[in-house]
Amino acid sequence: MGFIKTPTKGMRDFLPQEMSLREYVLNVMKDTYENFGFSLIGTPTVEHIENLTSNQGGENEKLIFKILKRGEKLDLSSENVNDLVDSGLRYDLTVPLSRFYASHMNELPSPFRAFQTGYSYRAERPQRGRYRELMQCDLDILGEKTCLAEIELITAVIAFLKKLDFQNFKIRINDRKILLKMIEYVGLPLEKVDSILIILDKMDKISLDGVKSELESLGLESSKVESYLKLFTNEKEDVEAFCNSFDLEQNILENLKEIMDTVKDVLNVELVFDPTLVRGMGYYTGPIFEISADGLSSSIGGGGRYDKMIENFAGVSVPAVGFSVGFERLLLLLEERGFIVPETKEKIAFVLKDHSKLKETCDEAKKLRSQNKIVKIVYRNKNFKFQKENLEKENYEIKEIW
Amino acid sequence: MGFIKTPTKGMRDFLPQEMSLREYVLNVMKDTYENFGFSLIGTPTVEHIENLTSNQGGENEKLIFKILKRGEKLDLSSENVNDLVDSGLRYDLTVPLSRFYASHMNELPSPFRAFQTGYSYRAERPQRGRYRELMQCDLDILGEKTCLAEIELITAVIAFLKKLDFQNFKIRINDRKILLKMIEYVGLPLEKVDSILIILDKMDKISLDGVKSELESLGLESSKVESYLKLFTNEKEDVEAFCNSFDLEQNILENLKEIMDTVKDVLNVELVFDPTLVRGMGYYTGPIFEISADGLSSSIGGGGRYDKMIENFAGVSVPAVGFSVGFERLLLLLEERGFIVPETKEKIAFVLKDHSKLKETCDEAKKLRSQNKIVKIVYRNKNFKFQKENLEKENYEIKEIW
Repeated sequence: MGFIKTPTKGMRDFLPQEMSLREYVLNVMKDTYENFGFSLIGTPTVEHIENLTSNQGGENEKLIFKILKRGEKLDLSSENVNDLVDSGLRYDLTVPLSRFYASHMNELPSPFRAFQTGYSYRAERPQRGRYRELMQCDLDILGEKTCLAEIELITAVIAFLKKLDFQNFKIRINDRKILLKMIEYVGLPLEKVDSILIILDKMDKISLDGVKSELESLGLESSKVESYLKLFTNEKEDVEAFCNSFDLEQNILENLKEIMDTVKDVLNVELVFDPTLVRGMGYYTGPIFEISADGLSSSIGGGGRYDKMIENFAGVSVPAVGFSVGFERLLLLLEERGFIVPETKEKIAFVLKDHSKLKETCDEAKKLRSQNKIVKIVYRNKNFKFQKENLEKENYEIKEIW
Repeated sequence: MGFIKTPTKGMRDFLPQEMSLREYVLNVMKDTYENFGFSLIGTPTVEHIENLTSNQGGENEKLIFKILKRGEKLDLSSENVNDLVDSGLRYDLTVPLSRFYASHMNELPSPFRAFQTGYSYRAERPQRGRYRELMQCDLDILGEKTCLAEIELITAVIAFLKKLDFQNFKIRINDRKILLKMIEYVGLPLEKVDSILIILDKMDKISLDGVKSELESLGLESSKVESYLKLFTNEKEDVEAFCNSFDLEQNILENLKEIMDTVKDVLNVELVFDPTLVRGMGYYTGPIFEISADGLSSSIGGGGRYDKMIENFAGVSVPAVGFSVGFERLLLLLEERGFIVPETKEKIAFVLKDHSKLKETCDEAKKLRSQNKIVKIVYRNKNFKFQKENLEKENYEIKEIW
């Protein structure tokens, strides 16, 4: 019998200290989001394979852990994967949320402020900071068509990050409608929008020249590529001037400005319009945003408006905005910073020489625990010095009983 | 594209109210167990298929959700299930805990007080109170060979259940060594121990006569079955007299009495020796116990000592005792009792007529939220009466802004 001691590939055990940090961060998050009126909901980790492979998940659909059918339904003579499986592990929380909302919208307030935490699964090649089992934390406002949704989401996430001592936030913001309009305006083919945006997304890595040559290698007309890229050399700080250079509809611009002005005013946080901000998912339909903070090379979260997605499940159109914070990345950053979870309870260890005083010790422990103190009862080890050191490392005050 | 709105079979979505009860119970549990010095640990939901199918899990092994291999490793021409899968969803927390401890024992205190919560998965036929995705909450003390482990586990679980207003606990206790000794004493074949104990376990359902006829239908000698069952008609209240009737070793009896006396003394809780208590799992090696409370027809938790199991993973012998509370059953009971989660925060809903006062409202909300109040900002719906009623149902105090 081959027992295997290590976790499955790309997944992790969490030791008490790691777990205590994870719990601490989750509790701060729950407490903060609760104050914004978000309600925690729950969805199963296992999702219908049909829902997972519906082209909502982009690249993630290639990384699904698929679950074998069971009993008579499993026909092993088939060589088609689709015949063998009926479900899979979710790769994000957005697909389950959409299914959840479609299923329960009549029982929920409208607009609905949803908060979900849970593990998602992606069969990626394991690497630092990328795991096959990853905690996700999503905030969504469903049924709110105005930018109140964007403002409240950004405000909630910043309130949470501030409580973990992150400082000097910077939010890059754009609108998918702007991305589309610019492509349309210079006459580039809209059917190539996905490829064009994937290249544009690399602007800060490969610069304008790199983007130019990659766009041309798509077979796009040079002159159109040039007029397209010229738009990006305009003054970006003044959103209005920038957007006017390609005749953007006034309402899109005003909506963006209202988000930027309100968040800046209320939170004193820097919002930067960035016309090269793309964000991967094709399901976004309006404003998109990413958040970073002091000492971070890249973003720790982001989101945007996806007004069409829930319709696939619900049959009716439901405007929606979501914001997801990269929980695992946040944990790495806190660990790097040497963040220590504040201990709030007194800790006492009763060390017994033998069991002659067991009852009295249990009685005493009961009293202290009811006063919300942490009490551990242990027998004296042969190597008491080592045992003592370890208990002290865990911050236990030691009381020897004999 | 076939989107499916309902959760996968036997699994559940949790609405905000349900989720809030689950969170409340989990938090009470975490807070209580923390006071007993238990450390929360984490293990992946996905486990090696080798570890899941190692005969530790009994009947549960038939209910595994198996995960298909991926990429080149998947050879669809095979018609053997074992060739197609490399992992599965855990069906309990004991297998992962054993693997975890074997993997990390050098980094953990000894004895180690472990606390784990998380979902397990069993492809059972769905029925009331039985789910394919179920929350499990396990307490274990690893590395403690004395009955201090049993006493502390029972004390911790009772402290937790008391905080949820459960009353008048009754703990049935037995020892697997007693079960074995009785079979051996009357000369019944020890190789049939599993079948014999499965039948004995039904004592309170089919009574002594039913047990007798089922044992005989196993092909066991009538006279031996009769002497076996005669043991159970002895006075059970006096453990000592009962156990002496079949020459039980003194140390087993003394150990059991020490658990019973100490728990009774310290907690004033009724402990009942029940020689027919079996508990399913074959891995138990010593004391076993089940807990019930007022108004419960059956138990809400149980556990026992399993001193041999971790050895399979660790290679060295590690004494262990575990106690698991049936979280889903507890939730059902609390819902039946109409248990309401206490609300601790003030709730305010700002209802805006239009966006002219959005900034001021965001400012005001920021202030109130920093005072730990729950604030929701919404726009006035067309049907304001309905909106108002719903907000009031959620206990929001409504402030209209115009």
